[in-house]
Amino acid sequence: MEIEVLQEKLARALGVISRVAVGAKSTLPILSNVLIKADNNKVSLTATNLDMAVVDYVPVVNAKDGIITVPARLLAEFVQNLPKGEKVKIVNDGTKVKITASKYSSVINGAPADDFPELPGIDESKSVAFSMSVDEFKAGASEVVIAASGDTTRPALTGIYFNTDKGALYLAATDGYRLAEKKFIDKVKSEVAAIVPTSSLQEVLRSIPEDVDTIEFLFDDTQVRFRIGELEITSKLIDGTFPDYRRLFPGESEIQVTLNRAELIRNAKIASLFARESNGAICCATDSKNGKFIVSSISNEVGENKSEIDAEVSEDASIRMDSRFLIEALNALDEENLIFGFAKKATPVLIKNEKDDKYRHIIMPLDN
Amino acid sequence: MEIEVLQEKLARALGVISRVAVGAKSTLPILSNVLIKADNNKVSLTATNLDMAVVDYVPVVNAKDGIITVPARLLAEFVQNLPKGEKVKIVNDGTKVKITASKYSSVINGAPADDFPELPGIDESKSVAFSMSVDEFKAGASEVVIAASGDTTRPALTGIYFNTDKGALYLAATDGYRLAEKKFIDKVKSEVAAIVPTSSLQEVLRSIPEDVDTIEFLFDDTQVRFRIGELEITSKLIDGTFPDYRRLFPGESEIQVTLNRAELIRNAKIASLFARESNGAICCATDSKNGKFIVSSISNEVGENKSEIDAEVSEDASIRMDSRFLIEALNALDEENLIFGFAKKATPVLIKNEKDDKYRHIIMPLDN
Repeated sequence: MEIEVLQEKLARALGVISRVAVGAKSTLPILSNVLIKADNNKVSLTATNLDMAVVDYVPVVNAKDGIITVPARLLAEFVQNLPKGEKVKIVNDGTKVKITASKYSSVINGAPADDFPELPGIDESKSVAFSMSVDEFKAGASEVVIAASGDTTRPALTGIYFNTDKGALYLAATDGYRLAEKKFIDKVKSEVAAIVPTSSLQEVLRSIPEDVDTIEFLFDDTQVRFRIGELEITSKLIDGTFPDYRRLFPGESEIQVTLNRAELIRNAKIASLFARESNGAICCATDSKNGKFIVSSISNEVGENKSEIDAEVSEDASIRMDSRFLIEALNALDEENLIFGFAKKATPVLIKNEKDDKYRHIIMPLDN
Repeated sequence: MEIEVLQEKLARALGVISRVAVGAKSTLPILSNVLIKADNNKVSLTATNLDMAVVDYVPVVNAKDGIITVPARLLAEFVQNLPKGEKVKIVNDGTKVKITASKYSSVINGAPADDFPELPGIDESKSVAFSMSVDEFKAGASEVVIAASGDTTRPALTGIYFNTDKGALYLAATDGYRLAEKKFIDKVKSEVAAIVPTSSLQEVLRSIPEDVDTIEFLFDDTQVRFRIGELEITSKLIDGTFPDYRRLFPGESEIQVTLNRAELIRNAKIASLFARESNGAICCATDSKNGKFIVSSISNEVGENKSEIDAEVSEDASIRMDSRFLIEALNALDEENLIFGFAKKATPVLIKNEKDDKYRHIIMPLDN
């Protein structure tokens, strides 16, 4: 194999690839390598951690066919440190891989491609496909992942639920204490109900190249493939049943309060300072007589705190909730104002933007 | 006590103060508090960890005399989260401290000032004093602290050595493997030879307010006081003898090579990638025949590497050194070019800026 690639192109691709390649101390050391393949003047870089595989195609200056694997992180760091504009040449002599660029030369010990695990295939002709704007997906998915669980004893909750309902595509996540849902494209022709591991989705979000406009998803029964320009990320799906979450949304919230988002974030942060003893529990309440929305917290040890926001309030209501959940939900919103919706006693609070209703976030109350 | 202070002023002062106050889990809980004292319309904030004390004076809108202590971090975070422009009022009722600002109110449980440790005094009339530009001190001291040791079995090396020689003030630090020295003001009238704990000096560097031009040092036999505007930081000195370091500098280096700093940093970083097995050991060598400066490294496991820089070289020389030390030394320089000076075998390498010679850094060679 002999390839010649521009430093910028190679460095960018290796940045994505080397994050998926696992650490060198794995029980299967070849998983820390990147597979470099030159075939008919196309060069691909591939890495996998067995749950997920990434393939990226790099534009080449020159290429002679061949295939080899090389420690991914070392190669990535070497190439990233080379000056921009350099042409990087990669040639192998058996498993010795020589990488040169004007005044820089390295020999890295590689491993034969035969040892590299075979990548899971996906039958694209039989799979369900969607595509959407990269910016819309990136923003929306980030608002949902915050609610996913880290608790591996309930695997279905550690993923993001891609699902269709009445012709629209939704992403949803819940950890049992809060739930986030984002509505994406309307009028989808296919149906899907698949749980994508949060770690895979986060890797996709991190890896999206800047110069690509559209992201494509392909689902089969056990896998999903994300295609973003020349980059392809394939992940296993989580085998499990996602809760029937739509019934958790309160119908019409009984008391809706419109609040300034920055002000409520400030007040929640201040209240959280006095809530360390109580695992972050703070109280949000309305005072209909004085037209106030009040955030407060109390700690036997350190003291107590109360902040007020002027608000139009029709009725008195109050809820105890985790300040961290509230702050994260507020950060996921993007309008100046938000709706804070109290429902009946012991049902969750609904939080959403004042105008756009594509994103809905609910937080369960804490016991008093 | 009753004081009224502008949010910005109070937040800035508490930022500095709360870093020195120790964590609340200390064996002496009062050390996590800030002492607030209003005396004759002057308000001071004080914190100490017993090795070091910080006092800052804040401009007040209103003040009634009194004294109280309050958990420093909680107060700092509360005030920092308040909107800018607010007037913050602090009133105590016994040890209950009420802090209010328009729509925000908190009560924090304080503690009586009597429990607060007495601060070490320093007799300013008898102490040795220097002063210099804040910018010069900040830049120069940062270049020296990198060479200080973290090994507490040799306390003298964990500090920065303030010393005078032939009418100039120097700061020096060494961990036994490298040594950094910066020359400051010429024509000082007093003499000093004192070891300031690196942690105290770093706190001073972090705390310097942006709107102050001059920093003043006062040394007595056991303490140093840094005065920067309204801020006073007093620290114990380290009781020990700093090595007679000046004799470690090679006289005239036998082979001096002028190199581009950015290029050498790049090459040292690349070589360090192949030096993980050997604890960062890389080789720097001259090739007089071809006019090259060569940085290389070799690893049985991962491979090997070589980068060249075109350079005027009179003689062949080579040294094995720790790449991390080299990179840190190069980052402490600030000119485009540097002098890399090889001395005789097994003596250290001297690194300095090409033109300005106030900063000198030496690195000991590693055994082959």
